Amino acid sequence: MSSSFGEAFRVTVFGESHGAGIGAVAEGFPAGERIDPDELARFMARRAGGKSFSTQRREADSPRFLGGIRDGVLTGAPLALFIENASQRSSDYKSFENIPRPSHADYPMYVKYGGYADRSGGGHFSGRLTAAICAVGGMAKQILARRGIYVGAHAAAIAGVRDAAFDPLRVTRAELEAAGKKEFPALDDAAAEKMLAAIASARAECDSVGGIVECAAVGLPTGLGEPLSDGVENRLSAAIFTLGAVRGIEFGDGFAAAAMRGSEHNDGYGISDGRVTPLTNHAGGVLGGMTTGAPLLFRVAFKPTPSISKPQRSVDLASGSETELVIAGRHDPCIVPRAVPCVEAVTACVLLDLILGNKGATENGTL
Amino acid sequence: MSSSFGEAFRVTVFGESHGAGIGAVAEGFPAGERIDPDELARFMARRAGGKSFSTQRREADSPRFLGGIRDGVLTGAPLALFIENASQRSSDYKSFENIPRPSHADYPMYVKYGGYADRSGGGHFSGRLTAAICAVGGMAKQILARRGIYVGAHAAAIAGVRDAAFDPLRVTRAELEAAGKKEFPALDDAAAEKMLAAIASARAECDSVGGIVECAAVGLPTGLGEPLSDGVENRLSAAIFTLGAVRGIEFGDGFAAAAMRGSEHNDGYGISDGRVTPLTNHAGGVLGGMTTGAPLLFRVAFKPTPSISKPQRSVDLASGSETELVIAGRHDPCIVPRAVPCVEAVTACVLLDLILGNKGATENGTL
Amino acid sequence: MSSSFGEAFRVTVFGESHGAGIGAVAEGFPAGERIDPDELARFMARRAGGKSFSTQRREADSPRFLGGIRDGVLTGAPLALFIENASQRSSDYKSFENIPRPSHADYPMYVKYGGYADRSGGGHFSGRLTAAICAVGGMAKQILARRGIYVGAHAAAIAGVRDAAFDPLRVTRAELEAAGKKEFPALDDAAAEKMLAAIASARAECDSVGGIVECAAVGLPTGLGEPLSDGVENRLSAAIFTLGAVRGIEFGDGFAAAAMRGSEHNDGYGISDGRVTPLTNHAGGVLGGMTTGAPLLFRVAFKPTPSISKPQRSVDLASGSETELVIAGRHDPCIVPRAVPCVEAVTACVLLDLILGNKGATENGTL
Amino acid sequence: MSSSFGEAFRVTVFGESHGAGIGAVAEGFPAGERIDPDELARFMARRAGGKSFSTQRREADSPRFLGGIRDGVLTGAPLALFIENASQRSSDYKSFENIPRPSHADYPMYVKYGGYADRSGGGHFSGRLTAAICAVGGMAKQILARRGIYVGAHAAAIAGVRDAAFDPLRVTRAELEAAGKKEFPALDDAAAEKMLAAIASARAECDSVGGIVECAAVGLPTGLGEPLSDGVENRLSAAIFTLGAVRGIEFGDGFAAAAMRGSEHNDGYGISDGRVTPLTNHAGGVLGGMTTGAPLLFRVAFKPTPSISKPQRSVDLASGSETELVIAGRHDPCIVPRAVPCVEAVTACVLLDLILGNKGATENGTL
Repeated sequence: MSSSFGEAFRVTVFGESHGAGIGAVAEGFPAGERIDPDELARFMARRAGGKSFSTQRREADSPRFLGGIRDGVLTGAPLALFIENASQRSSDYKSFENIPRPSHADYPMYVKYGGYADRSGGGHFSGRLTAAICAVGGMAKQILARRGIYVGAHAAAIAGVRDAAFDPLRVTRAELEAAGKKEFPALDDAAAEKMLAAIASARAECDSVGGIVECAAVGLPTGLGEPLSDGVENRLSAAIFTLGAVRGIEFGDGFAAAAMRGSEHNDGYGISDGRVTPLTNHAGGVLGGMTTGAPLLFRVAFKPTPSISKPQRSVDLASGSETELVIAGRHDPCIVPRAVPCVEAVTACVLLDLILGNKGATENGTL
Repeated sequence: MSSSFGEAFRVTVFGESHGAGIGAVAEGFPAGERIDPDELARFMARRAGGKSFSTQRREADSPRFLGGIRDGVLTGAPLALFIENASQRSSDYKSFENIPRPSHADYPMYVKYGGYADRSGGGHFSGRLTAAICAVGGMAKQILARRGIYVGAHAAAIAGVRDAAFDPLRVTRAELEAAGKKEFPALDDAAAEKMLAAIASARAECDSVGGIVECAAVGLPTGLGEPLSDGVENRLSAAIFTLGAVRGIEFGDGFAAAAMRGSEHNDGYGISDGRVTPLTNHAGGVLGGMTTGAPLLFRVAFKPTPSISKPQRSVDLASGSETELVIAGRHDPCIVPRAVPCVEAVTACVLLDLILGNKGATENGTL
Repeated sequence: MSSSFGEAFRVTVFGESHGAGIGAVAEGFPAGERIDPDELARFMARRAGGKSFSTQRREADSPRFLGGIRDGVLTGAPLALFIENASQRSSDYKSFENIPRPSHADYPMYVKYGGYADRSGGGHFSGRLTAAICAVGGMAKQILARRGIYVGAHAAAIAGVRDAAFDPLRVTRAELEAAGKKEFPALDDAAAEKMLAAIASARAECDSVGGIVECAAVGLPTGLGEPLSDGVENRLSAAIFTLGAVRGIEFGDGFAAAAMRGSEHNDGYGISDGRVTPLTNHAGGVLGGMTTGAPLLFRVAFKPTPSISKPQRSVDLASGSETELVIAGRHDPCIVPRAVPCVEAVTACVLLDLILGNKGATENGTL
Repeated sequence: MSSSFGEAFRVTVFGESHGAGIGAVAEGFPAGERIDPDELARFMARRAGGKSFSTQRREADSPRFLGGIRDGVLTGAPLALFIENASQRSSDYKSFENIPRPSHADYPMYVKYGGYADRSGGGHFSGRLTAAICAVGGMAKQILARRGIYVGAHAAAIAGVRDAAFDPLRVTRAELEAAGKKEFPALDDAAAEKMLAAIASARAECDSVGGIVECAAVGLPTGLGEPLSDGVENRLSAAIFTLGAVRGIEFGDGFAAAAMRGSEHNDGYGISDGRVTPLTNHAGGVLGGMTTGAPLLFRVAFKPTPSISKPQRSVDLASGSETELVIAGRHDPCIVPRAVPCVEAVTACVLLDLILGNKGATENGTL
C-alpha cells in the first residue's frame, strides 16, 4: 500500500515538503518499551544536516507525538508522530511547479495524479519524509538494542572515493556504534577527507555526487526471515527503495559475486564453542531469505543529488514547450551522509517487523 | 506472506524438490484472457535446461491446470497449476540431509524449522520452484503483450564476460522478443561463445560461475507504481529476491550512479511528437517508484551455483562435528541462462500486479 | 494490521481518548477530488452529539489536515488528519484506571499490553476514535456521490422500539439523503418519539440502551466485490467491527433467513428496461460476495452503552481484590444515534476500497 | 485478496465445482506438528454428507497432499492439498449455464467476469470449495487442541426449530467434542428429530430450509486479537463470509443485545482462584476485538439452500428474455448440518492465525 511498509510492524508516512508537515504512524510497536528521547534526538540529528559538508539549512525536526506513547513508554496503540514544517509552501517553488526537475519524481507524479499532486519541493516524494522514517526507525533501533541487536552503517563510497569496509564476519556492536558517532560517516578518516573534498568540488561546480551506504546488523537470531518472498532480502530491498534516491541494493558480495566462482563465494561451516558458524560471510548473513548467524551485510547505491544548479533541459507542462531549467537556491550536493541514518532506520524497522512476525523456531544455532 | 508476492495479482508457490511436485496459485488474473499453450511451453522450455551448456537432465515440466482456466480461457477464479515431480525423494539425498551445503538455504532452514523442514534437494527452497513461477509468469507475459507491454532479458554477464547491453532509451519490442528466441541468452554471439567456454571450464574444474541478468520492459504507461513503498523498484526488488541465487538488483545506472555526477546522471526532458520524453534513461525508466515513459531497465546479480563437486567444509548437524562435504552428481555449473526467463516471469507478474492495482491516472504522457 | 482496514483504499486510525488527540491516515484517495468542507462538517456534526437526546458535551471535532489535500483538492498523497483533544488526560480517570469497566475493552487491553496501555477513557479503544473515521468516511461519501453512489442509514431499532425500514428493493438516493438530515435518525417520527422516551427513561434509571442501525447503498455497479474472502460482506463485516460496540451484522433478511424456506428467500430475476433486475431483494443486494444490482442493505447490532452509573461488580487489578465500581459523570445512555453516521462512514470507505480495487468487469447488468 | 484469508496463517482456496478439482494452500503452519490422518478423515466426513438427512451423493473427498507435509509431519513449507473431482463438468449443467439460479452467485459472477466464469454448478463459488477449507481447518483444529484450545459447533436452529444452547460461560472441551461426534449436529435429541422432520418436509415440497450454527472456543488466552480492525470479530466475520450461504454473524448476545439494558448486558468481573474472571458472558468472550478469558461464542445465520426444484423466475442471459427455471436433480434441502464443521474449520484457521500473529502479552489473566 503506497506509503506503508511492514506487516507485523507497519510504518506509514504522510505529509508533503511544503505542506503542514510530515509524519508517520507505526502499528505494532511492543507495549512497555521505554524510549530514550535524548538518544532519539541524537539519532535524528545525524540525518538533520546543517553541518559544513551538507545541507545549508538546519531543520529542527523534533517530532510531536500524537499517540501511542505515554510518559515515554509505548502503550501498544499505534505510535503517531508529526513534524511541523517550519516554513510552509514557498512561493519560490510555484514558478517551477510546471517544469519537472530531471531525476526527481516530478514528471511521473504529474502524470499519475493528473496534475493534482502537490509538487512543491517534491511534495510527498521529498526527502524530507525521511525525517519521519528516522524518528520511527530510531525508536525501533532502541528496542532492537534491548534485544541485543545492533544496526549500523557508514558511507562506503562517495563520488568514487571508497571508505574502509566492515569486516563481513567479525564486525562488532562496538564498531557499529562508533560509526554512528562520527561527525562524518566514514570509518576511515583519510577517506572522509577525500570525500569532503569531492563534495566541496561538486558544490563549487554547481553539481552533485552520489555514493554507497554499507549497513550491517549483528545479534540477529539464525533463521530469521520468511521464505520465499518474505525473507530478509525481499523485505529489506522493498523497504529501502522507499528512500527516493536509491538505485540498487546488494547483499554480501552482491554484484561482485556474479564474477566469482562457487569455490570462492560459498561459505563453509565450522563449529565454534559448540555452535555452527559460517567460516566466511560472502552471503552477507542471509541465505534463501533467512539469516545464517553471520552479520547481516548489504550495500545501497544512492544517485547524485538530483537538484543541481547547472542549467538542465526540461519542459513546461503548462505550455507544452521545451525549456531550460535552472534550480536556484543552495542544495545539498551529496545526500549520502544524511542517507546513512536513513538506511539504518529502515533496516531497524524491517528487522523489528521480521522479529515480531517471525514464524520459525529461530533457536540460535546451538547443536 | 512467506511464499506469496503481489497484491491485486498475487502468486503463491508451493511444493518441494523431492516431494509430490511443485505448483502455484495466481489470484487476480483477468477473466477472458486466452492462453496460448504452445507459446507458454516455449517460454517454459527456456528455463527447463537440458541443453549442452546447462543442466544434464531435462525435466518435462508441463503444468497440469487445477483451476481457473477452461478451454484455454481464464475464468477469473484463482489459476492453480501443478507440476508433478517425475522422480520423487531420492535416497541419495538422505545421506546428506544433516550436512548443510554451503551457500544453500539448508542450514538456516534447519534452524528455523527445528529440523522438520524437507531439505532433500533444497526442499521448498529448491530452484525447481521457479518452474511454477515461469508457468504463471509466462501467462502474465501473454496478457501484457496484448496490452502492448513487452518484457525481455538476457545474460548481461557470465563469469565476468560481458554481453552487449540493451539501449536503455531505444530498446524495442523486436529486440526483446529476439533475445528470447536465442538458444543461449546473450545478445552478442561472440560474448556467448566466451560465456560457454567459461561455463565449460568451470564444469571441468568441478566449480561454478555466476552472472548478471539484464531485463527491460517497453510499452508501460507513465506513472505506473504506487509511492513511496509500493513503487516499481520496491515491488520488483522484493519479488526478484524470490529467486534463490539473487544477490543484488539495480535500476538504470544502478551502482554506477553512485560514482556519477548529477549532471551526468540526470535525465532531461524534451518534447517529441507532442509528448514529454526523457532525453536519456540513466534512471532505468523509473523515478520515485513511478515509470517515466522510458523503458524500464534493471539488472540482477546471480551468485555462482552453490552446488559444486569440490570438497567443502561443513558440519554434521546430527553429530555436531565438523566434516567435509563432497556433493556428488552432475550439477549445472551456471544457472544464469535458466535464470533469464525466471527474471522475465517475475517481472511480468509484478507489472501485471501494478497495472491491475494501479491507483493513478497513467495517462500516457500526452500534454 | 491492528488499527487499519482496506487495501486499495486503506484507513489507519491513531490516538487515544485522553492523549494529544486522535487522527487518521487514508492511503489511496483518488487525486483531483474536491472536498466540500461544509458538507464534511455537517456529516461530522451528525456524530458529534451535543443534542438533547445524546451526549451532554459537544466536542468541536474539526479536523486539521496534515497532508494529502491542497486548496480543498485531494493530491493523491496519503490524506492525514488530526483532531486535537480539547481536554487531555483527566485526573478523574486515574482513580479508575485499575478497575476495568464491564463491557469495555479495559480488562483484555490490560492483559494484552501488560499494563502499559493508556486506558484513560478507553484510550485507543475509545468511541472517540470514530470521529477520525467519520472525517475520512465523510470524504469518501462525497467521492462516491460524484460517481452516483449514495450511502445512508438510520436507527432501525432502539431499546426494542422499531423504526420503519428502508424498502430493500426500491430505496432511493432521496430517501437516503433525507434520513441523514433528520435531527434524530429515525425514518418514522412516531418511532423517534418512543425511542427518545426509552433513552430518557434509561438515563433516569442510571442505565443504558442499545439498538440496530440499518444501512443501504444505491447506485453500485453489479459484480462489485472480490470472491470468496474479499467480497462485500467479508470486507464490510470486518470493517464495521472496528466500531467498538458492534455485536452483530446481517445482510438482507439476515438471521431471519435462517427460518425461511428457499422459495420465500430466493430472489428471482426479471428484465426491466432491457436490464436484468432482481425481482425482490432478500439477499440485501449481495450474493457470493458480489453486488447484484439491487440496493446493498445490511443491519448492525449495537450493544447498550457500557458506561452506566449503576454500581457494578469489578476488580482492582492493582490489589487483586473484588470491588464495586460506580462510574461517575454523565454518560450517553444510547450511542445508536451517533453510531448511524459511523456506520455510513465505514461503509463509504469499504465501498470506495472495493471500487478502486475492483478486478472484474462490473458492466452494469445490461444484456 | 479474493480467495485467501489470514495473515500470519493464510489460507488460499482454488478450483471449481466441475473442473479438475478443488484445493487449498495454507502458508504459516508451524513446522513439526504431526497430523493424525484418521482424525482429519473423521472431521472431513462430518462435512461430506451422504447421510439420510442430507445430500444424496457421498463424495470421497480424501485430499492428496502436494507439499508441506512429510511422513505425516508439517515441514514449515506451504501446505498444499488437492481433492480431485470424481465426475467432472457435466453436460447437464451446460443447458442451464445462461440461466442464473436465484440466490446463487451465478448472475453477479456472469457480470463481473464478462461471461467467462466457469458457472457449472457454481464454479469457484460452489459449496464444494468448503471441502478444502475443512481439510485445512481440520489440521488447524489438531494443532490448536495440542495448545489446549478446542473449537466446537452445533446447529442452533434449523427451519425455526431451536436446539439447546452452549452455556456461554461454562461450556467445556468435553461438550464441544461431544457435539462433534453426534450423527446429527444438534445437542438436544428431541430438537434433532424435529429438525430432521422439517428438512424431510421441505424436501417433500421441493423446497429448502436454513438455520443457525452456534460455535464456541475454549482455552483461548486472554487478550488475543489485534485492535481495532484486526480483532477476533473483524477476522472471524470476514473469514466466515467465505462460506457462501452465510447471511449474518453475531457475538455473544448479538442482535438480542440491541434490546437489552446495559445493566443486563454488561459482564462484571470477579476473582476466582486468584484470576480475574468475567462473571457472565454476554459479550461472547470478546471485547474491543480481544478475548476476555470467557469462552468465545458466536452464531452464524445460513440461508435456505438456494437450489430448489420448485419453478422459479429467471432470465436467459443469452437471449435476453425472461424464463422459468426448474432445477432438476436431487439437492440437499438443508446445508446447515454440513455447515457446522465448516464453521469450526474457518474458526480454527482464524484462531491459529491470531495466535501465530499475536502481538500482545496474552498472559492468561493472572493477577
